[in-house]
Amino acid sequence: MKATIITIGDELLNGQTIDTNSAFIAKELNKIGITVFQKWAISDDENEIKEALKNATQKTSIIIFTGGLGPTNDDITKKTLASYFNVGYKRDEETLAHVAQIFAQRNKPFLAINEAQADVPTNCTVLFNASGTAPGMWFDDNGVKIISLPGVPNEMKHLMTVQVIPRLLEAFTLPIIIHKHIQTVGIGESFLAEKIKDIEAEMPENVKLAYLPNFAKVHLRITGKGENEIELEKLTSLYHKLIADRVAEHVYSLDERSQIQVVSDLLIEKKKKIALAESCTGGYLSQLFTSVAGSSGYFDGGAVVYSYDLKHKFLGVSNDLLNSVGAVSEECVEAMVKGLLNVSTADIGVAISGIAGPSGGTEDKPVGTVWIAVGNREKMISKKHQFFKNRNINIECSVVMALEMVRVFLMKE
Amino acid sequence: MKATIITIGDELLNGQTIDTNSAFIAKELNKIGITVFQKWAISDDENEIKEALKNATQKTSIIIFTGGLGPTNDDITKKTLASYFNVGYKRDEETLAHVAQIFAQRNKPFLAINEAQADVPTNCTVLFNASGTAPGMWFDDNGVKIISLPGVPNEMKHLMTVQVIPRLLEAFTLPIIIHKHIQTVGIGESFLAEKIKDIEAEMPENVKLAYLPNFAKVHLRITGKGENEIELEKLTSLYHKLIADRVAEHVYSLDERSQIQVVSDLLIEKKKKIALAESCTGGYLSQLFTSVAGSSGYFDGGAVVYSYDLKHKFLGVSNDLLNSVGAVSEECVEAMVKGLLNVSTADIGVAISGIAGPSGGTEDKPVGTVWIAVGNREKMISKKHQFFKNRNINIECSVVMALEMVRVFLMKE
Repeated sequence: MKATIITIGDELLNGQTIDTNSAFIAKELNKIGITVFQKWAISDDENEIKEALKNATQKTSIIIFTGGLGPTNDDITKKTLASYFNVGYKRDEETLAHVAQIFAQRNKPFLAINEAQADVPTNCTVLFNASGTAPGMWFDDNGVKIISLPGVPNEMKHLMTVQVIPRLLEAFTLPIIIHKHIQTVGIGESFLAEKIKDIEAEMPENVKLAYLPNFAKVHLRITGKGENEIELEKLTSLYHKLIADRVAEHVYSLDERSQIQVVSDLLIEKKKKIALAESCTGGYLSQLFTSVAGSSGYFDGGAVVYSYDLKHKFLGVSNDLLNSVGAVSEECVEAMVKGLLNVSTADIGVAISGIAGPSGGTEDKPVGTVWIAVGNREKMISKKHQFFKNRNINIECSVVMALEMVRVFLMKE
Repeated sequence: MKATIITIGDELLNGQTIDTNSAFIAKELNKIGITVFQKWAISDDENEIKEALKNATQKTSIIIFTGGLGPTNDDITKKTLASYFNVGYKRDEETLAHVAQIFAQRNKPFLAINEAQADVPTNCTVLFNASGTAPGMWFDDNGVKIISLPGVPNEMKHLMTVQVIPRLLEAFTLPIIIHKHIQTVGIGESFLAEKIKDIEAEMPENVKLAYLPNFAKVHLRITGKGENEIELEKLTSLYHKLIADRVAEHVYSLDERSQIQVVSDLLIEKKKKIALAESCTGGYLSQLFTSVAGSSGYFDGGAVVYSYDLKHKFLGVSNDLLNSVGAVSEECVEAMVKGLLNVSTADIGVAISGIAGPSGGTEDKPVGTVWIAVGNREKMISKKHQFFKNRNINIECSVVMALEMVRVFLMKE
């Protein structure tokens, strides 16, 4: 089963907006065994929309539009769909009540232009949009499903998850799809492939392995496609276990959670609080922890100690140490953790100090040299990493490796 | 003049990769007066590539491909282009020497598969890729310019800027385009529009105004299109000045620099060092400062003080104060700045404390309440902001408003 994604909006064509919607839609479709044939970004233009719709109808059985559903004149998707199907409008009372309520809550006048958001082409099924004012629409054109969703990401995501996926599962006889995950860290894609090539080679046709690399991490996704759910669960579980066992030393998760979520969950489970001392990562790891809602329960805070002075003042790292071995050293990161645990009541301290680049490298400590220490009041682990030449890549990799060191440390607690 | 952008790669269709390339390309084309007609994402499939190329050739005079130029078998763009034009290959010696050198530097064996990266269709002009191993290619098909670029973002950007734009300017008689910028903060798009509607209404046909909103900021871009550069410079400067004067109190930049760059440049100019104390923004502002290479010259560091305990321990905020007025208060952010300037030798301190949400709000201090203080050892400015219900939006807005307060503070120094 194949789908075409058509994103509508001038802002996608002038470079103002980066389209993240279509990647989300593609992922959701993939999960239920629907492949995306192509993605087209077109402008808010009636002829372009109609031509794209005609073309897509000839190529795929599912067409998903996003965008062009706002109340203003430049949004013409709904009007164009009504004209394409040569139908008039009906008023959706549930949507009308919902939109009226939103305006009442915001103390804004409810104008005719807003009321019209509840009017939809007579031949469509309304996809009720609890997250916004523009309803989604579902059309059946001789078996081809045509779906129109708002372009606002959280509204699109809501409708895609709650309305579109269940209806697609109902409308089509789709194969059963089972995904299994193995997330690894600290080993390159090609080395990983080399380690498991015999397992990969003997996988049957209906089981696929995808490598999804992301900085120092590789996410392995096993996808089984079939008709018998029990058989398929057995088969995918077998390969999941075979691969997970083979690369066990590099695995940080056997499910889909993000790395920060894995570590956060572990902190909650082990009832530990963490504090950070960041130099070259400049607050990035703190920001990552606090991006998780509820992090105040286990994240104490930290120090962004870019200067020698703050390393000394906030964390008590001695000037002698800094002037002798320097900030990018085992001694310094360990002193940073000790200082952190002196000041804070956190159970675990993490320190990162390195040379992110582009400048600042020396022969001994080239750009990409990063020391990381993780410790509590009894023990400490520190490790030197040699990353790359690129500033952003070095910052990303530092954070990934620090989180992995925290995870390993916590597992032994 | 119109262009079609065609991105090639299965990773764009299964949701694994978010396409940022095409937005960059669109922006660069727009700057020189070329409009993007449509963007198509297609898979690494010979027939799809050929069909897309045929369609695009009928619609636009410029076609830009990205992706599918790697050395492995799944990358077929080059092969498909040679087959489309029915031509053989020639070896580009400059590329060969360049690729050989890259492999020598990395101490990797230089295989036939890598040598083949220097082979290109006989009818193409090579776009030398100093940033990578796959050369770009430029074809002329009866006046239609067909350009193939690698999908790796930094390689694509390099070729687009250094090779493609200059050649397009030479190949076509394009109108002269002049852009002027007015970047505002703390005023909504619709209020801004209301303030300048009379100026906007009297703009001539060839001068356009775009509103580019981004959290608490709106970037106004004035674009003039014409044939006489001197006239056009006069005309766009006139509207630039009229609008900039009208909304002066909200303007933080009259050029294209990012907000963090504007503030960083000002710190350098005024020879001031800055330190941060972040609560609800959790290190995001620190991370933003340190994302600018060279920031160690003016960024001292900061404290991410999520807990009461660290507010007290790192910054000396008294427990009495925290227990009476709470962390989200004028008293607290001012005490945080004072504490920061006590510990650090920085000239300017910034403190942010608020309730980002989703939980933690009270009747007095609902989610979205954020206090920000900026001060030096003589004076202090603090301000309460009321943002929104969404955690990420609140964090983003806090950082934007803190940077604006720093800018205003520095301007008065």
